[in-house]
Amino acid sequence: MWITTLGSHCALQVLKGAKDEGFMTAVVTERRREGLYRRFGFIDDFVVVDRFGDVAKPDLQAALRERGAVMVPHGTLVSEVGVDTVEGGLDVPIFGNRRMLRWESDRNLKEKLMKEAGIRLPRSFATPEEMDGLCIVKLHGARGGLGYFLADGPGPYRRKREELEAKGLLGRDAQVFIQEYVVGVPAYLHYFYSPLHRRLEFLGAEKRYETTVDGIGRVPSSLQGELSPSYVVVGNIPLVLRESLLEDVYRMGEDFVRASQRLVPPGSIGPFCLEGVYDAEARFVAFEFSARIVAGTNLYVNGSPYSALTYGGEQVSMGRRIAMEVKEAQASGSLDSVLT
Amino acid sequence: MWITTLGSHCALQVLKGAKDEGFMTAVVTERRREGLYRRFGFIDDFVVVDRFGDVAKPDLQAALRERGAVMVPHGTLVSEVGVDTVEGGLDVPIFGNRRMLRWESDRNLKEKLMKEAGIRLPRSFATPEEMDGLCIVKLHGARGGLGYFLADGPGPYRRKREELEAKGLLGRDAQVFIQEYVVGVPAYLHYFYSPLHRRLEFLGAEKRYETTVDGIGRVPSSLQGELSPSYVVVGNIPLVLRESLLEDVYRMGEDFVRASQRLVPPGSIGPFCLEGVYDAEARFVAFEFSARIVAGTNLYVNGSPYSALTYGGEQVSMGRRIAMEVKEAQASGSLDSVLT
Amino acid sequence: MWITTLGSHCALQVLKGAKDEGFMTAVVTERRREGLYRRFGFIDDFVVVDRFGDVAKPDLQAALRERGAVMVPHGTLVSEVGVDTVEGGLDVPIFGNRRMLRWESDRNLKEKLMKEAGIRLPRSFATPEEMDGLCIVKLHGARGGLGYFLADGPGPYRRKREELEAKGLLGRDAQVFIQEYVVGVPAYLHYFYSPLHRRLEFLGAEKRYETTVDGIGRVPSSLQGELSPSYVVVGNIPLVLRESLLEDVYRMGEDFVRASQRLVPPGSIGPFCLEGVYDAEARFVAFEFSARIVAGTNLYVNGSPYSALTYGGEQVSMGRRIAMEVKEAQASGSLDSVLT
Repeated sequence: MWITTLGSHCALQVLKGAKDEGFMTAVVTERRREGLYRRFGFIDDFVVVDRFGDVAKPDLQAALRERGAVMVPHGTLVSEVGVDTVEGGLDVPIFGNRRMLRWESDRNLKEKLMKEAGIRLPRSFATPEEMDGLCIVKLHGARGGLGYFLADGPGPYRRKREELEAKGLLGRDAQVFIQEYVVGVPAYLHYFYSPLHRRLEFLGAEKRYETTVDGIGRVPSSLQGELSPSYVVVGNIPLVLRESLLEDVYRMGEDFVRASQRLVPPGSIGPFCLEGVYDAEARFVAFEFSARIVAGTNLYVNGSPYSALTYGGEQVSMGRRIAMEVKEAQASGSLDSVLT
Repeated sequence: MWITTLGSHCALQVLKGAKDEGFMTAVVTERRREGLYRRFGFIDDFVVVDRFGDVAKPDLQAALRERGAVMVPHGTLVSEVGVDTVEGGLDVPIFGNRRMLRWESDRNLKEKLMKEAGIRLPRSFATPEEMDGLCIVKLHGARGGLGYFLADGPGPYRRKREELEAKGLLGRDAQVFIQEYVVGVPAYLHYFYSPLHRRLEFLGAEKRYETTVDGIGRVPSSLQGELSPSYVVVGNIPLVLRESLLEDVYRMGEDFVRASQRLVPPGSIGPFCLEGVYDAEARFVAFEFSARIVAGTNLYVNGSPYSALTYGGEQVSMGRRIAMEVKEAQASGSLDSVLT
Repeated sequence: MWITTLGSHCALQVLKGAKDEGFMTAVVTERRREGLYRRFGFIDDFVVVDRFGDVAKPDLQAALRERGAVMVPHGTLVSEVGVDTVEGGLDVPIFGNRRMLRWESDRNLKEKLMKEAGIRLPRSFATPEEMDGLCIVKLHGARGGLGYFLADGPGPYRRKREELEAKGLLGRDAQVFIQEYVVGVPAYLHYFYSPLHRRLEFLGAEKRYETTVDGIGRVPSSLQGELSPSYVVVGNIPLVLRESLLEDVYRMGEDFVRASQRLVPPGSIGPFCLEGVYDAEARFVAFEFSARIVAGTNLYVNGSPYSALTYGGEQVSMGRRIAMEVKEAQASGSLDSVLT
């Protein structure tokens, strides 16, 4: 049996984990990146495409189906192939509940699911006039934090917006999403829900490393001038959480799984991530979730402190955890529980 | 033989380490967190209490004594049970020198021990009028950095204090501790002193992840306004130190152990932590110590770069290192050297 | 066969890696630090000197040659012994191309090699008058970031310079190097080039932990005053990079190796590091390179996420990777390919 994924995001981790569990592995890679993936010994086959969107082409899908490949979805599948295609035009078994990807991609559905789960959200503002403090303005469909900006009132919002429009960075009719900026420290919480064991596992935490926002604090105030941060993710930094926060971490995760089971049956399967900040009172305020493996798990190719607590000496990355679930489902004849 | 600890802070690491060394393990857990600890396979027994303070109840102590349990103390024992009880009302063998916990908890004793050890301290000011630069004001007995604030002179101090009093966050007669704010980078140094081998081991370094102070630098100066940081620990981030600093790291640790042997015989046993900043000249200035395992060691469930240098391929967390010492003491009939 | 290195910087990692590969190990240590290195079980011999410069003394060189020692160069060899001695007066086999160390140490050669490699550099300014934005001013020959300062124009430059001169921190005729300050997030990329396999390996990423610059963001703007950062490295923090950046990471590394083969034949051998920031567009802008192992690799004594992708379960630190190459070269009679 094969495990495959798009060649980007967390493909190396996913395919190495699959190989460690005994699967054959294939990467669907854009031509320009084929060289990167050929460097690694744990990839058995290379499906070379011009653009990731080509994965939806009938012959390519057929080829994947023929070898019985299971596709592990990640951020690049969402951004480069798109949820319409994933839902309606990708006839390849996907690990996890593929319908969840739409709920991740649509800001209204996303908010609905988080509210259903009872997760604390930042306030959002329908119009700039309602802003009553520091806010972060997010472009609909922006990726990787590109095009986000801060403003602390309607006036600054308009000035900043006009500046971006003048530079051609923002269309005049571009829809934006205005959200309270919660001052605190960012944290990304990596979960895995096993339908086979009906069990939630917390497997790691990290913070993103974003340019330029994680660098501006190195510039003293007197020299910052009108410096305006960008939020482009370039990496991740490992983190453990205070143990007294873990009860809440699991509770949020389980509430999220149950909410997803009600709203998007059969609900979450496999990895997901709650993304937010711990505020001044150390309460977790979530501004996003991902309904699939996140790239921050790449920190833990050799396992994380949390996977060590759950799996002992075994080095269980999220990629390997996925492969373990597929393997177990296959052995017990319950692949239907983990694939859609 | 059993190893037990309160269910918080670093209990998972401590009990996993104990299990890895072949001990039976019990967690003393508050009812609301029992579910958390039941998730992990390395905990053999669950002593459920309403509040951590109940650990001092005679029948509970008797139960722990009956199974020959050794208790590993950590921050929660200090903050929730208190040093009076630990010294006078907790008749259970404790790993380490329990008298040291008072020296950790009392700011005057703490300063006395650090001075005896010749460790560089920030200046402290008896009254606000003496402040002559940026200072951090710490509430006596504040936990986890809650209630700390910055001020750069008597005037700003009074304004900030009145603001906190008005909000009910600070009593009008609350004692505070005013300390020079040393600009530099925080570092927490994890030590283990083995009485059996009369040897100091340096097993790891990290920095805390504190909300909101570790997030305010992500807000550009022009939007920070009167933003005032809090110092609530929510996690930890791994760190290694420049190798040329290590000689000094060991020297400080050994000076600390010797000072503790003079002032608090038999002195430090097992884990302790020096907590401070490296200033602009890369000198370590310590603002605190912990006389027991710190939660930052949770980063290193699988061992740290430093434990790897000391213990080779073995993955020795601080929790496991404690269990190793108990095991060795038991085997050599010298439990008296490590328990009090 | 022996592997040796100067006792500082990354000596512990290098010698542990050598021991793991079966070599005998010797540290050349200054007397004051001998105690540090005697703490570790993987060091077989201690060559004690008064100052590191003594390594060039004929009898000491003879002693190293007699036991067939290979020396692993690192930052301390460059800064304390100096490239003149390394090139002309150190008759001990060195792992890697020793001529590269001059290109690392000389700012003009350094820039020439990076340009030859087509690596994106910050702009540099020949005179303060040319400055047209935020700049970092670096003292020629400054070590560890000591003496660097920021200025956003000729006026602030002169004021800051006069201030440092008045304090005796900068000579009146001291040469400085004025470089565009690229706002972004710092990243250090650890490479290993194997001449035996003609293969480039990317083995890790990190960011330095620098005092005070990585602490000033914890001081709110309103209290920063004229706070002026220093850039003294005291440690390192682990990092993984966004997978979509890796193709470029390898390309830059291979371009660097090829450029070094043209300009400094036989070119790069073994470890090197590209040091820079990811700017607002997530482009890597390199302000330095190191032509040998960097101290940031000390994070990965047990291997990094990237070495795990390349070497599977084996825990391959950069120090161990060096020893693996020496061992293989010895076995295949091609030591000439890796030593100079």
